[in-house]
Amino acid sequence: LDATAVADAEARQAGLVKPAGALGVLESLSIQLAGIARTCPPAVPGAPAVAVFAGDHGVLAQGVTPWPKDITAVMVEVFRNGGAAINVLSRACGASVTVVDIAVDGDVAEGVGTGAEVLSRKVRRGTADLAKGAAMTRDEALAGLAVGIEIANRLVDGGADLLLTGDMGIGNTTPSAALIAAFTGTDADLVTGRGTGIDDETLNRKTEIVAAAVARTAGVDDAINLLAEVGGLEHAGIAGLVLGGAARGVPVLLDGVIAGSAALVAQRLAPASIDYCIAGHRSVESGHIVALQQLGLRPLVDLDLRLGEGTGAALSVPLVQAAARVLNEMATLESVMAGPDA
Amino acid sequence: LDATAVADAEARQAGLVKPAGALGVLESLSIQLAGIARTCPPAVPGAPAVAVFAGDHGVLAQGVTPWPKDITAVMVEVFRNGGAAINVLSRACGASVTVVDIAVDGDVAEGVGTGAEVLSRKVRRGTADLAKGAAMTRDEALAGLAVGIEIANRLVDGGADLLLTGDMGIGNTTPSAALIAAFTGTDADLVTGRGTGIDDETLNRKTEIVAAAVARTAGVDDAINLLAEVGGLEHAGIAGLVLGGAARGVPVLLDGVIAGSAALVAQRLAPASIDYCIAGHRSVESGHIVALQQLGLRPLVDLDLRLGEGTGAALSVPLVQAAARVLNEMATLESVMAGPDA
Repeated sequence: LDATAVADAEARQAGLVKPAGALGVLESLSIQLAGIARTCPPAVPGAPAVAVFAGDHGVLAQGVTPWPKDITAVMVEVFRNGGAAINVLSRACGASVTVVDIAVDGDVAEGVGTGAEVLSRKVRRGTADLAKGAAMTRDEALAGLAVGIEIANRLVDGGADLLLTGDMGIGNTTPSAALIAAFTGTDADLVTGRGTGIDDETLNRKTEIVAAAVARTAGVDDAINLLAEVGGLEHAGIAGLVLGGAARGVPVLLDGVIAGSAALVAQRLAPASIDYCIAGHRSVESGHIVALQQLGLRPLVDLDLRLGEGTGAALSVPLVQAAARVLNEMATLESVMAGPDA
Repeated sequence: LDATAVADAEARQAGLVKPAGALGVLESLSIQLAGIARTCPPAVPGAPAVAVFAGDHGVLAQGVTPWPKDITAVMVEVFRNGGAAINVLSRACGASVTVVDIAVDGDVAEGVGTGAEVLSRKVRRGTADLAKGAAMTRDEALAGLAVGIEIANRLVDGGADLLLTGDMGIGNTTPSAALIAAFTGTDADLVTGRGTGIDDETLNRKTEIVAAAVARTAGVDDAINLLAEVGGLEHAGIAGLVLGGAARGVPVLLDGVIAGSAALVAQRLAPASIDYCIAGHRSVESGHIVALQQLGLRPLVDLDLRLGEGTGAALSVPLVQAAARVLNEMATLESVMAGPDA
């Protein structure tokens, strides 16, 4: 972040017509936005863009979720037609929606629908079963990262000034938990959650699968190799979006646990990229807070969401805009005390 | 709330294209909004209106805050001219701002400024010192409630479909703490906080004053008498706004600790009025969560705000709108599974 803009924003916050610190997290967020924009006050983000990375997961063969794999492709069509939660919440905050087929195990047509543009960037048809070996090759993980970077560039070139991460992938809380365990050194049972709703027996099986997969990565330190071993291609895409957004100097608003786990990959590859990240919300998935702690991010909203798609990021767009507006529009104590004739 | 609309909204939520419960608090909020609107789906609130009740407090003589009393009247002018945080955050969410001089100890002119309309409804020039006796008479407390009800009617008649509570009053966290202690039976030290920032010595003095004032009310059960004894006129106005909003069937979005303590008065007078309330945010002031527990409300955002003015309510307007939009705009599982040709 730009040190001069950060210092200017800190000084400006201190002079606004309110007690110091009274706007809490909005103040630190406004300072971060100034540092990202490299100017104070920063422009208010007005063109948010959600990138929803969609992919399937071989680990579904282990019965880690009651939902069938086909739902991933079905939901891509719902996104295209504008009926999903992310469509609704994106319309609410004026965000565009771009769905990226990065690993859907089914045929997805490119094209612009009433709800979203769908892009085909399929690296492979679903990952391999991470319970039995690496989820993907190192080259596939790199290809997934490159897709994310390309999407960041595409969206920023198209005018986006705030990137939001989204995901769709039945079973993708399993690789998320594995990534969080692997990147933070936390036990599997502390970071494996119920996803969209599973019973105790399924949770136990899911936790064992995560623990076994992570155990296989003992000694692996390379972020790309870890991603390939236990991750998913949505995660690769989101990590690439973070890297691409940071490289373009655009803030990246993270959704929930899928995004949090993916951001750990970006953090390992380029720690400074996290300076450009904002945590949109706190998921109920237990691993998310572990990821956020390692990222050093505080979530803006905490409303028990566990849907993904980018919904938690979209919900927090108005908060990000509000933080920037405070720095742009509030009067200073000095001007108020000088009176209207000054 | 309307039981049929609530049941319809519950059924509709259960059929939307997402796992049950995956939108967390947004789901319960959408059901509440349907119950308030007496129809499902409820219209998306599009005309929010903030009422900022401004008043002074005799307890300032006890040195409970480092800020001078004059700031209250100064801030009314800042609101009028549009430079305060509540002006910025209201513009961000499309809310109108109405400032009500209910007890400012200074001259405030009525009139419409670029930032707010200012109304004169002065019940008295500041309350009496609650450390030495009742802060106001019972008649004055009733007059304050009537002001709040009048403002609710005025705003709803003007087209508002979502009322936001706001306040301005140097020293008003002291009567807030006293109201919370008196209405919840909680010890003063658990509900008295640092307000806009006071040192340990001042906090101790403030806590002793709150404890002594509450002790004086032992045996008093009547809500109006308690309000008169230890409250403020902003509190009376806000309690009236809650009652008036509920009576008109309009949701009331509460700001922080001042609003939370005032809502306790409304709750005692008319428990059902709280069904119409939504907690905008959680203040850092310790008494706020105690008040919210008694009200049975969960705050939408928790960003360490401690400014008042209505800022925490204004910040959460987009979340309320998002909840209503979900119920209006999301596709159903049934329609998705039937396919585009169904």
